[in-house]
Amino acid sequence: MTATQLTLIQIDNYGPWTVTPEPRREMDLQTLQSRLFADLAQFVGSRDGYVFFTRFDNMVAATNGLDRTDHALLQESIGNRYPVTISLGVGVDEVPIEALETATERVQDAGSAQSADRAEVLGGEFHEDSGDGDLRIAHFDVNDATGKYTDRLNEFDTFIEIEQGYASLMRYMREAHGALSFFVGGDNIIAICPDLSVEEYHDAIDHVAEEAGVQLKVGVGRGATAHEAGIGAKHALEDCRYEGTLVEFA
Amino acid sequence: MTATQLTLIQIDNYGPWTVTPEPRREMDLQTLQSRLFADLAQFVGSRDGYVFFTRFDNMVAATNGLDRTDHALLQESIGNRYPVTISLGVGVDEVPIEALETATERVQDAGSAQSADRAEVLGGEFHEDSGDGDLRIAHFDVNDATGKYTDRLNEFDTFIEIEQGYASLMRYMREAHGALSFFVGGDNIIAICPDLSVEEYHDAIDHVAEEAGVQLKVGVGRGATAHEAGIGAKHALEDCRYEGTLVEFA
Amino acid sequence: MTATQLTLIQIDNYGPWTVTPEPRREMDLQTLQSRLFADLAQFVGSRDGYVFFTRFDNMVAATNGLDRTDHALLQESIGNRYPVTISLGVGVDEVPIEALETATERVQDAGSAQSADRAEVLGGEFHEDSGDGDLRIAHFDVNDATGKYTDRLNEFDTFIEIEQGYASLMRYMREAHGALSFFVGGDNIIAICPDLSVEEYHDAIDHVAEEAGVQLKVGVGRGATAHEAGIGAKHALEDCRYEGTLVEFA
Amino acid sequence: MTATQLTLIQIDNYGPWTVTPEPRREMDLQTLQSRLFADLAQFVGSRDGYVFFTRFDNMVAATNGLDRTDHALLQESIGNRYPVTISLGVGVDEVPIEALETATERVQDAGSAQSADRAEVLGGEFHEDSGDGDLRIAHFDVNDATGKYTDRLNEFDTFIEIEQGYASLMRYMREAHGALSFFVGGDNIIAICPDLSVEEYHDAIDHVAEEAGVQLKVGVGRGATAHEAGIGAKHALEDCRYEGTLVEFA
Ligand SMILES: Nc1nc2c(ncn2[C@@H]2O[C@H](COP(=O)(O)OP(=O)(O)OP(=O)(O)O)[C@@H](O)[C@H]2O)c(=O)[nH]1
Ligand SMILES: Nc1nc2c(ncn2[C@@H]2O[C@H](COP(=O)(O)OP(=O)(O)OP(=O)(O)O)[C@@H](O)[C@H]2O)c(=O)[nH]1
Ligand SMILES: Nc1nc2c(ncn2[C@@H]2O[C@H](COP(=O)(O)OP(=O)(O)OP(=O)(O)O)[C@@H](O)[C@H]2O)c(=O)[nH]1
Ligand SMILES: Nc1nc2c(ncn2[C@@H]2O[C@H](COP(=O)(O)OP(=O)(O)OP(=O)(O)O)[C@@H](O)[C@H]2O)c(=O)[nH]1
Ligand SMILES: [Ca+2]
Ligand SMILES: [Ca+2]
Ligand SMILES: [Ca+2]
Ligand SMILES: [Ca+2]
Repeated sequence: MTATQLTLIQIDNYGPWTVTPEPRREMDLQTLQSRLFADLAQFVGSRDGYVFFTRFDNMVAATNGLDRTDHALLQESIGNRYPVTISLGVGVDEVPIEALETATERVQDAGSAQSADRAEVLGGEFHEDSGDGDLRIAHFDVNDATGKYTDRLNEFDTFIEIEQGYASLMRYMREAHGALSFFVGGDNIIAICPDLSVEEYHDAIDHVAEEAGVQLKVGVGRGATAHEAGIGAKHALEDCRYEGTLVEFA
Repeated sequence: MTATQLTLIQIDNYGPWTVTPEPRREMDLQTLQSRLFADLAQFVGSRDGYVFFTRFDNMVAATNGLDRTDHALLQESIGNRYPVTISLGVGVDEVPIEALETATERVQDAGSAQSADRAEVLGGEFHEDSGDGDLRIAHFDVNDATGKYTDRLNEFDTFIEIEQGYASLMRYMREAHGALSFFVGGDNIIAICPDLSVEEYHDAIDHVAEEAGVQLKVGVGRGATAHEAGIGAKHALEDCRYEGTLVEFA
Repeated sequence: MTATQLTLIQIDNYGPWTVTPEPRREMDLQTLQSRLFADLAQFVGSRDGYVFFTRFDNMVAATNGLDRTDHALLQESIGNRYPVTISLGVGVDEVPIEALETATERVQDAGSAQSADRAEVLGGEFHEDSGDGDLRIAHFDVNDATGKYTDRLNEFDTFIEIEQGYASLMRYMREAHGALSFFVGGDNIIAICPDLSVEEYHDAIDHVAEEAGVQLKVGVGRGATAHEAGIGAKHALEDCRYEGTLVEFA
Repeated sequence: MTATQLTLIQIDNYGPWTVTPEPRREMDLQTLQSRLFADLAQFVGSRDGYVFFTRFDNMVAATNGLDRTDHALLQESIGNRYPVTISLGVGVDEVPIEALETATERVQDAGSAQSADRAEVLGGEFHEDSGDGDLRIAHFDVNDATGKYTDRLNEFDTFIEIEQGYASLMRYMREAHGALSFFVGGDNIIAICPDLSVEEYHDAIDHVAEEAGVQLKVGVGRGATAHEAGIGAKHALEDCRYEGTLVEFA
């Protein structure tokens, strides 16, 4: 049984800041957002968590193994180095979407995302005793994306195809299983999942093939942390490549 | 009449690199990708262009005002500081998708995205005489995203809504007008467009409201560069906010 | 009694790389070096260590609290994201210079800094049981640098003054006590020290005043980690400011 | 005859900020400082200027080729992405130290480095008509630093040697020629110089050998920009290596 600890990272009062006193240069905002994400990826990632850029002003992280002290330090360090601050909400549950529901509420309960009074919220519960099988990570990838799309279509039309596949998978996994799927670049999608069977992964792949016409394969891993589960998933995906299969478990 | 210069930025042979000799830590890949994007955003952005992260291994930039020398310098500088190199293809056209078609072909013609032999391609044509009205940028934004989604739903369900709005808009704008729409974080979408009328923007907004149930507004700007057009679009979007309108031109 | 764990971080075969195939753009090298240092500062710093830029191709870190696994992860992560790799040597001793001697030897024994065959060395011993008083950090600072130099002289002449003060202190502390003093920007010098008395700090300050004509003050802290000792030192330095004294212990 | 344009970059009111409300984590300050420098190195460097970290809170740049608009954009972009702002002063002169004198005064005249009221000063004069020989860059380097120091001594004792060589050179070049010498990492020193003869460079090298016991060699280049002059200097330094000489002009 999984026990996923998820953290919502929300930039405080970011919307108003982007247009005060005048709308800021878009490329500076893009730089700020992507570097903030990179810093989170290093902090969380070097502690074996995963963080996803999601909407950039709101990011989601799988943080099993990071406790309250780690979260407080992250918050302090970002506050020391950026012109904006972040709020953090944390939740734990067997079903990922439920963990995120809790995490989000902890931040929402302290005030609006666009409240000038609310800053650096740190709320929620942490998963104390970690277990080997707490996390399931599924790493999905498009079959032969290079040959079918990248080398053949213009980049925007390739992007539309990949994006449709992603949109289809994200909705399906969320509705069917309460799983959270994130696009991570290229043709890759990483999903934080509860326990699912081989058949359930085949169904997801079939669904995307039918709805969006995109052929996925998937490697699935488990571990005490996102990195452990995720690196297992990557190796399983390599197995798919060598075996020519669509679903492999680590 | 617009004359959009677009650059395709493609990381050379990136797929194989990510799994050689073993699959690399995902958070290191995420850090690499987002910092590479941030560096491009600073280089291109400080020359008044716009760059979009798209799939991160393939990025699209509006580069009016940047010539071949600028592109060569960017390529050299990335090669000096990253463990990967980039290829660049450039195209110019009245219709954005046509410019990108050309840009992509320049890179594709030199070899596959996953060819070990192909590196640091720099091909294409540049827009020589820039004119005031060469670029049209439309900055779309969701109405009251904070009140309707961010402060109310869990972050993943918010993300699904925003993402559906984006998927709907990106397809519509591409098919109806050959325009390229990019999600830039939060609830914001920036589109590189040809000349379009107020009605055509209203139609796009209506389409997204019907198909995805997401209410957009849009500010539209024009200029010799993406920044000029884009900052105009941002000011026009502020006009929408103050006037309570859905479409404003700078 | 102190037990300082020091790590030498050396970029592998960096000299040849900077001129292959042609001398690389200096500002790209500067960017690479300072970002590598920033990444080390975040990795080590968020685990309560301190790292100093020293010569940038060779950096020194106080790493009490970081074990072999942490060092291996740091090395892997840098290797994933930079065009260069790093070797790490670690030593522990009561006297800082002795710890560094050991740390350096571990790297030197594996081959030359400019050997194409030597890469990603990870050698040395780690301090297993950490104690409250393992580290002593002294934070030195110039009295009224703003009024005496920054606001009055041209920046280079200010720099010469500060730099002379630093050169004087670094030699004195190394020779008299085996302590390692690092310039950290502005008018600040941070020294990793063995146990020293108030008088010994006064002597150091007197020496610099006489030799270089620069008036320093110093706050001294102790702790199980560099951050703990260092933040104590910073508070002690604030005490100097409020009390008008030259040496304060946390 | 040279015409060097120098820019002083000063972080506004930085001292007080580092201790408000409490002393900030040193490694966050180090990260902030080195990333700010890296961003300046990219902005200035990609426009063929050079920037030196100096004291990090005050940096010096050779900015021939960058006009007032470039400086204003740099200032705006840093303000958009950092929790601190920067002031810029610019001066032009045949003698580098005179140019910096002017540049510094422009900032000093607007208020103290530690005044809460003074922010984002942008003052000074710009070199309008650039000429081929406006800049002289001398790239000094220690002979066989690897064999004599890095591979043999502990890193701190190596550092002391290099640092003594630097201290000696910086004072000599400033006093004898009004030239500004900056340590750039490893065993490298880059100097912004007026027109000097081969003999004058030999004298400088002799001085350092006698005073500090460090054997330097130097390549000298000229150009309309720092990069042009600097890349010439690097090639000339390679000539020293191949010819076994101590001074080479590009
Ligand atoms: N984030 C992330 N992206 C990856 C990873 N591996 C590959 N990619 C991306 O996926 C793109 C396509 O690479 P591949 O999936 O290897 O190529 P493909 O043509 O689809 O080939 P097959 O998947 O083997 O059928 C690359 O350019 C990367 O952007 C990974 O581990 N993480
Ligand atoms: N990239 C980018 N994102 C922005 C910009 N302005 C706002 N955002 C993002 O949009 C999010 C929502 O902000 P707003 O659009 O101001 O808020 P809202 O609740 O939708 O309110 P209205 O749009 O005024 O109805 C912010 O958190 C940012 O992520 C911008 O100029 N550029
Ligand atoms: N690295 C680092 N630098 C600091 C710190 N505090 C101040 N500085 C630097 O020191 C410079 C001078 O600041 P202060 O020391 O506060 O100013 P001062 O004029 O010398 O005044 P007093 O020290 O109070 O006499 C600042 O610009 C910073 O660069 C710190 O905690 N760490
Ligand atoms: N900033 C900078 N540093 C460099 C450059 N070239 C070399 N270095 C540094 O200098 C160090 C020593 O390299 P070298 O000077 O090639 O080595 P050496 O042993 O002194 O050999 P010789 O100079 O050839 O006698 C390297 O580790 C780098 O840190 C350069 O172009 N710029
Ligand atoms: Ca694939
Ligand atoms: Ca909005
Ligand atoms: Ca001071
Ligand atoms: Ca050398």
